[in-house]
Amino acid sequence: MRNFKRENNSIPKQIIDNARGLAIDMIDEAQSGHPGIALGAAPILIDLYMNHLKFNPKDDKWINRDRFVMSCGHGSSLLYATLYMAGFDITLNDLKKFRQIGSITPGHPELGVTPGVDVSTGPLGQGISMAVGMAIGERYLENYFGKDIINYHTYVLASEGDLMEGVSYEACSLAGHLGLNKLIVLFDSNGITLDGKLENSFNEDIKNRFEAQGWHYLQVENGENTNDIDSAIERAKQMNGPTIIEIRTTIGKYSLNQGSSMVHGSPLDREDIAQLKKRLDLRLQPFQPSADSIDMFRDKVKTRCEKEYANWQKKCAKMTEEMRRELVDLQNNKKSIELKNFSYEMPADLQEATRVSSGKVLNAISDEYPFLIGGSADVSKSTNARIISTSNFSNRSPMGRNIDFGIREHAMGAVANGIALTGITPFVSTFLSFSDYLKPAIRMTAMMDLPVIYVFTHDSIMVGEDGPTHQPVEQLISLRSIPNLDVYRPCDSNEVIGSYKAILKNRRPAAIVLCRNRVLINKTTNINDVINGAYILEKERKKGDAIIISTGEDMMIATEVKRELDSKGYDIRLVSMPSIELFNRKSKAYRQKILPDLNKTFVIESSSSYSWHQYVKDADHLFTIDQFGMSGKREDILKKYKHDCEHIVKRIEELLN
Amino acid sequence: MRNFKRENNSIPKQIIDNARGLAIDMIDEAQSGHPGIALGAAPILIDLYMNHLKFNPKDDKWINRDRFVMSCGHGSSLLYATLYMAGFDITLNDLKKFRQIGSITPGHPELGVTPGVDVSTGPLGQGISMAVGMAIGERYLENYFGKDIINYHTYVLASEGDLMEGVSYEACSLAGHLGLNKLIVLFDSNGITLDGKLENSFNEDIKNRFEAQGWHYLQVENGENTNDIDSAIERAKQMNGPTIIEIRTTIGKYSLNQGSSMVHGSPLDREDIAQLKKRLDLRLQPFQPSADSIDMFRDKVKTRCEKEYANWQKKCAKMTEEMRRELVDLQNNKKSIELKNFSYEMPADLQEATRVSSGKVLNAISDEYPFLIGGSADVSKSTNARIISTSNFSNRSPMGRNIDFGIREHAMGAVANGIALTGITPFVSTFLSFSDYLKPAIRMTAMMDLPVIYVFTHDSIMVGEDGPTHQPVEQLISLRSIPNLDVYRPCDSNEVIGSYKAILKNRRPAAIVLCRNRVLINKTTNINDVINGAYILEKERKKGDAIIISTGEDMMIATEVKRELDSKGYDIRLVSMPSIELFNRKSKAYRQKILPDLNKTFVIESSSSYSWHQYVKDADHLFTIDQFGMSGKREDILKKYKHDCEHIVKRIEELLN
Repeated sequence: MRNFKRENNSIPKQIIDNARGLAIDMIDEAQSGHPGIALGAAPILIDLYMNHLKFNPKDDKWINRDRFVMSCGHGSSLLYATLYMAGFDITLNDLKKFRQIGSITPGHPELGVTPGVDVSTGPLGQGISMAVGMAIGERYLENYFGKDIINYHTYVLASEGDLMEGVSYEACSLAGHLGLNKLIVLFDSNGITLDGKLENSFNEDIKNRFEAQGWHYLQVENGENTNDIDSAIERAKQMNGPTIIEIRTTIGKYSLNQGSSMVHGSPLDREDIAQLKKRLDLRLQPFQPSADSIDMFRDKVKTRCEKEYANWQKKCAKMTEEMRRELVDLQNNKKSIELKNFSYEMPADLQEATRVSSGKVLNAISDEYPFLIGGSADVSKSTNARIISTSNFSNRSPMGRNIDFGIREHAMGAVANGIALTGITPFVSTFLSFSDYLKPAIRMTAMMDLPVIYVFTHDSIMVGEDGPTHQPVEQLISLRSIPNLDVYRPCDSNEVIGSYKAILKNRRPAAIVLCRNRVLINKTTNINDVINGAYILEKERKKGDAIIISTGEDMMIATEVKRELDSKGYDIRLVSMPSIELFNRKSKAYRQKILPDLNKTFVIESSSSYSWHQYVKDADHLFTIDQFGMSGKREDILKKYKHDCEHIVKRIEELLN
Repeated sequence: MRNFKRENNSIPKQIIDNARGLAIDMIDEAQSGHPGIALGAAPILIDLYMNHLKFNPKDDKWINRDRFVMSCGHGSSLLYATLYMAGFDITLNDLKKFRQIGSITPGHPELGVTPGVDVSTGPLGQGISMAVGMAIGERYLENYFGKDIINYHTYVLASEGDLMEGVSYEACSLAGHLGLNKLIVLFDSNGITLDGKLENSFNEDIKNRFEAQGWHYLQVENGENTNDIDSAIERAKQMNGPTIIEIRTTIGKYSLNQGSSMVHGSPLDREDIAQLKKRLDLRLQPFQPSADSIDMFRDKVKTRCEKEYANWQKKCAKMTEEMRRELVDLQNNKKSIELKNFSYEMPADLQEATRVSSGKVLNAISDEYPFLIGGSADVSKSTNARIISTSNFSNRSPMGRNIDFGIREHAMGAVANGIALTGITPFVSTFLSFSDYLKPAIRMTAMMDLPVIYVFTHDSIMVGEDGPTHQPVEQLISLRSIPNLDVYRPCDSNEVIGSYKAILKNRRPAAIVLCRNRVLINKTTNINDVINGAYILEKERKKGDAIIISTGEDMMIATEVKRELDSKGYDIRLVSMPSIELFNRKSKAYRQKILPDLNKTFVIESSSSYSWHQYVKDADHLFTIDQFGMSGKREDILKKYKHDCEHIVKRIEELLN
């Protein structure tokens, strides 16, 4: 272990206190925010940014910067104050607009809004779990580009709340398993939660818990002692696995209510602010930090980071043109992925479950594109979401592109977000029923506009024997209703290819929903029409008695229904709508071309009716499933739920007459 | 510690092997199911049912029976075989119909379908977490009725998958904290998951992990050794906290593929079945168990349980009439709760956030009804879901009726299900945004038809400064689309009272969704109309130009919009729709009375439009929120999202002209 130069890293207390003062001013100005953590954790954040975090305030997207994740996002005031002091493009005026509409200093940290904010946080547990993904991405890129180019740490500030959330156990278990040595968690251990004392609800032995999960554990007894914090971080960097540093702090330090839950989430009152500022030798006038402190802070950062940044630039200059381009694309992260040599082999009998097609397509993409990695929550044999040509990602095989997430759906989603934040495109998979488990992470994907690909299979009551727990009903509407998420439910292999093409082109948050059973590959499905969301699969012959919209495996039933109705003399248009979101973004003219008359439109989809009311006259026109499923054979279930061809034909006939 | 009588508990291997044979026959007949766990865990289940579990096959709802939770629900074949052998009302014919539609032996265990099945399981992690709730309920009831009447254990069979799910860490952390000594987890440790070896994704130290959470840990090295299993269970019963017994088993024991993931989820082939049956000395002919084995099993159960059951009956006979009635009601669990002395005090200024009203109503109910317990995921100060008159539920205070769930939303939901399974009515609360975290548990509530009350507050973008992570958008539709869940969004205190009245009367799975901000208490809101789902809040004067539907805090806006439109000469009907589900269950006549003309109906709700298409002509008539929110003041946000009175009035005018 190397000899620490602690002297250089000692921090004048006034710098920390100035950060505290700014945070308190912000909360007071907004009359909203969380003073407890801002006062308690200030020494941690200031030490991290002054002495450890590798960054460049003038290039806050630098791909080789160290990442910082404020998992307890309610500490945003402290984060913004620190970023301002560290020299990011944030002004005192921005701090004054804390929590005001349109400001760059919102209530919780938001990616893309504030310079220096690496990730959106707020819902507890998500940040620390995304950090695991960021560390996975780092390891992959480090091995791809070499240590000279990619070699960064991911730091997390986590609260008790983060550690109580199930997703953090899952993610930390995975991090320990993978031995992610560049992941360092700073645990702001203050023994207080919103409702009172931590001991009212929690008495785990944190050391044993994390060691049981393969982590290193360090402790700092006095969270005001920045020397101790500093050397703990230094030690953590030397460890051969992830490290958690438990730092005992006092919530609301220096407030009259310090050490109590009263100081967690309400602004301090006048008197409290006055005594606090006096005690810390801060100007009573708000937003008047000491220029000295800020200069000292910025100088230290400059000395430490400027040379490193310049060196990195030099190393980059030596890279091949192609690699430089790759780096830029990763950093940009929104550029379409174009495939030149994509190939897909249709099965001889033109029958294939869409989950199988999806596996083939994912493999074809990965053959050409090296920044696609992913895996499944222990169901890759069923979801086919596995890159066959490469091994599992692990400590020994960091270029493996399959992550065995284990039976940890929620962490899988959060980790995918973290991976996407590194520029790598992640795909992750489980059964659609269990998409519920990772919904909170999918919401973060959508909110941060990250190009994560969610692969959900076994997508309806038609999965059969496993019964209602494994049969999705309301999951499709749950996904479709998430703002900024594109949901695809392709009806056959062609549409699977089209879905992935649209996903790679649009680079938006996406979920592709696939069936378990084999479906006929339709002659009229169109790869290139998927990006329009919906298109006419079979046109009416003449007068057009009705339009039937369908998706996914239900298209097999819809096609049969159309044949049957046609044979009875009706004239039916069949519309495939693999993506409602994409269709609804099309022009009104296009939408009317596809669905000219809602009065005669019907929908067949074995999923909640809520998705479909918008396209029909009334609920009678919906052949959907609004109750839980049953264990049984596919055909028996369809009959039981009156979702079979015979029943649907009968009902449509009644409604048309 | 007492002296174990192990001799009496030794189990002839043929009993275990007959259970194995039946399970294999069932899976073979269905050509679907999971032989791996059935073969591997048979000794555990047989020992538990023969030697430990207190039950009466003739009275499978006996309130003082020990509970068994097959957390790894895919082991259903083994469970059904065991229940059959133990003498529950299940025939060989029922076993033959395994996984067939309408049978009492579905793919995963389902409450209410199979005699002897105490809980539905299937999604991993839910079972073990519900068991924590069952043990909490037991402790409460034990202290309420006395140990003579209630004194049962809750046993769980859990797989690796259960222990990898975040919800199980959360629930086990809570169980350890509460010292639930009557909770015993039998961990079927076979080192294999669906995708392969456990070590590919998981290498936690189970002993240290559970001890860090306050559990006792025992190990059985050889899962075929029923004496060891037996004495470990015996020891676990003596412990002063929850115990996990790690039992090393071999997945698919005796199959040609034993010890490999190949045997997890696919039926064995002919050859394999033949060699297995030969080796275990079982009849090759399916469903021909040895009568001897079954007799031995049933005799043992009879000897052990019959007297205990009779003794319990005698003790019951000594109870007061009132207590006996209470017991019956708890066991029945669907009987309406009627309140005689309910009282609610309106605030003097007739303004109150519905979350505050909800707190008052919950307290009023709890004053009268002793079987209402609950709590919050560390936000009871904000959700007001706390019973003020009693203490926290804890080891020292088992009659406390507030559970500090900690920041463990998902476990909170699962634990609530477990509590509801004991007959107690649980209420649990968090912010609506975080309802996503417990969605998988809410789905189980709905599927099992349990009278859990979910209290979700901070229900729209109007929460303001905390920003998009804390502002629900798609959560209401996510809840409304869950089959069999009633969702209430009352607009003021009167409707809050009405919502709870409906919830207590209907005894159905329910979520009540409440606002953060103060709202005016409306003179025309009607407590007794809530149960109709929707009603006319303000009738049109004459011709009726438009109908506006609104809910919750949005009603403040809707009322203002109506006033404004009225003042401009329009004639507006205002409809309050606190519950879409309840309204949609009303007669067509009632629905048409309230909403006579969808062409002129508008909706104002700051939540996803997907809920509302069914009631309007087209999307133009919806004033909803379909994008993520923003950090800012309530009023600024409403303006920004064009969800303020001025904008809505302007748009409706345009549409009416």
